[in-house]
Amino acid sequence: MAYRVAVVGATGAVGEAMIAELERSTLPIAELVPMASARSAGKTVAFRGAEVPVVEATPEAFSGVDLALFSAGGQTSRALAPEAVRRGAVVVDNSSAFRLEDRVPLVVPEVNAEALADHRGLIANPNCSTIQMVVALAPLRERYGLRRIVVSTYQAVSGAGRRAVDALRFESGRWLEGEGFVPEVLPVASLPVKYPIADNVIPQIDRFEPNGFTFEEMKMVRETQKIFGDPALEVAATCVRVPVTVGHSEAVTVELEEAPASMEDVVEALRAAPGVVVWDDPTAQRYPTPMLVRGERDVYVGRIRRDLFRPNVVHLWVVADNLVKGAAWNAVQIAETLEEKGLLRVPAAEGDR
Amino acid sequence: MAYRVAVVGATGAVGEAMIAELERSTLPIAELVPMASARSAGKTVAFRGAEVPVVEATPEAFSGVDLALFSAGGQTSRALAPEAVRRGAVVVDNSSAFRLEDRVPLVVPEVNAEALADHRGLIANPNCSTIQMVVALAPLRERYGLRRIVVSTYQAVSGAGRRAVDALRFESGRWLEGEGFVPEVLPVASLPVKYPIADNVIPQIDRFEPNGFTFEEMKMVRETQKIFGDPALEVAATCVRVPVTVGHSEAVTVELEEAPASMEDVVEALRAAPGVVVWDDPTAQRYPTPMLVRGERDVYVGRIRRDLFRPNVVHLWVVADNLVKGAAWNAVQIAETLEEKGLLRVPAAEGDR
Repeated sequence: MAYRVAVVGATGAVGEAMIAELERSTLPIAELVPMASARSAGKTVAFRGAEVPVVEATPEAFSGVDLALFSAGGQTSRALAPEAVRRGAVVVDNSSAFRLEDRVPLVVPEVNAEALADHRGLIANPNCSTIQMVVALAPLRERYGLRRIVVSTYQAVSGAGRRAVDALRFESGRWLEGEGFVPEVLPVASLPVKYPIADNVIPQIDRFEPNGFTFEEMKMVRETQKIFGDPALEVAATCVRVPVTVGHSEAVTVELEEAPASMEDVVEALRAAPGVVVWDDPTAQRYPTPMLVRGERDVYVGRIRRDLFRPNVVHLWVVADNLVKGAAWNAVQIAETLEEKGLLRVPAAEGDR
Repeated sequence: MAYRVAVVGATGAVGEAMIAELERSTLPIAELVPMASARSAGKTVAFRGAEVPVVEATPEAFSGVDLALFSAGGQTSRALAPEAVRRGAVVVDNSSAFRLEDRVPLVVPEVNAEALADHRGLIANPNCSTIQMVVALAPLRERYGLRRIVVSTYQAVSGAGRRAVDALRFESGRWLEGEGFVPEVLPVASLPVKYPIADNVIPQIDRFEPNGFTFEEMKMVRETQKIFGDPALEVAATCVRVPVTVGHSEAVTVELEEAPASMEDVVEALRAAPGVVVWDDPTAQRYPTPMLVRGERDVYVGRIRRDLFRPNVVHLWVVADNLVKGAAWNAVQIAETLEEKGLLRVPAAEGDR
């Protein structure tokens, strides 16, 4: 069987990356159906040598679609993802709309593919920052147990969409020429206060919650707990936007249940883990940076070192392409995993057909 | 009495900032003596409306100098600072050469001015990243006790000198034009491997130590312990260079001996602390960024929040101008403090005169 695959938000930064991942996917694809808002309908996207017209994302457009990858924001997902499932499409949703719902699996295939088993047509793709962190921590969790995570992020602007990338480039040009500008996009397009990102860093990603953490920081808490199936796992995050187009970096401090016998043992656990590349050699100044990982599906880990005071605490530097493993590849990887497991169909009770 | 004040490394990024701080200092200055290597001798620097010639830094040049601010690297400090003291100059040294020596006070005036009491002519200025962190943590230490610090830094390139600022600008221009370039300066000019800093972040500042931490990270451990006079204080740092010209940011997680009664109590302690500005209001999207603090002497603290799981753990976002409070102002502030305490002289046993 070959599938009709829709990408919702096909003209966005993640949508474009999803189409690129589908191009190199092992999934048998009969047809690509790029969807977007009415404004973008009529544009075309390139797919395997053809120019494919973008159609407006409406409930009816999902008729005959087998798989729909959503990345057009929470509002679009809330409005259309249930409609797509009702029409028989398995949805992998990249928004935060359904991630924490009990009956929606939240999946990083290397970590918790088993959660796909009883899906009901809708699977959630985790937040980009969460994905790369759990890929790196899963092997340590398995070998030593995880008690607590403290993470500081260095997040690329592409995580905030194409407009934010354009803003970084525009602002950088003005900055280099010594000219002023009015920041218009970051930290959050829909909130009133804007800050420059060129020659600056911004410690706000998404809106604030009443507890003083941002929604992005709380995603890292709640999603990590759900993916690991451990509601008692302690996570503390500070999420920061940096003037980088693509590639999220994270300084991760992890408190393990059990102290590793040696750091070689930690490195071995990481090396053996799927989706992880250990890129770590201080004597050769080897460690990952955003530049290294662009276009890569793997999560790169370096700066692996034991805490100076607590033998059960380890520090890591984790870098991945936020558009690839952090979004598009993880979504396509979920679809490939469903296909391999014979699960790429909406259970009879959920769809109309 | 008015002083003859030398600035060694007067043409560097920090030297220039030192001269700017001396211009607005309350210290009575009879004469500024800018010094640099033979290569820069003959240039002039502007000071209070005059163009002052730069002289070569030699042992003899310190004759008649009362106060010498050094910022020309560890090698120059090791060679010339003792010579300056021997000739009667009180030295405030911004290099790491003497910071950990037992008989050298390592001083942040807001935190441990009392350490100046029995100086022997040479006072060390701490590392930029350490200074802003201890200013922010001193009031919490006093009120609740400090047990452990985990810090991730977002450090500006000016911390690596003028060449690194030039490199960021050059690389940014090439990046915007889509042209390649060969990185030549960062992370460490004297080490073989170089990485781009435009559109990138680099998790290495200074060379690596055998324990896997960088020297910069170990400075934050050892200097913080020394400044607080607490060799058991646990500090874990990840130091990262970001594409920002001026202004270091730090995500600081601090484990206190005692859980604060409320976060209002924490904010009050910070507000009352000298050299600290609390800049924190999530509802107004108020938090410090590098752009906010440029040219400021104070350390700005925002994102103040209690850990979700451990009541004795607090998270802070700490931003300061690395050239001002992180280097030049702290050095001039040490000199002003010495003057106020009647200590701006080399004790008889140390100098020759």
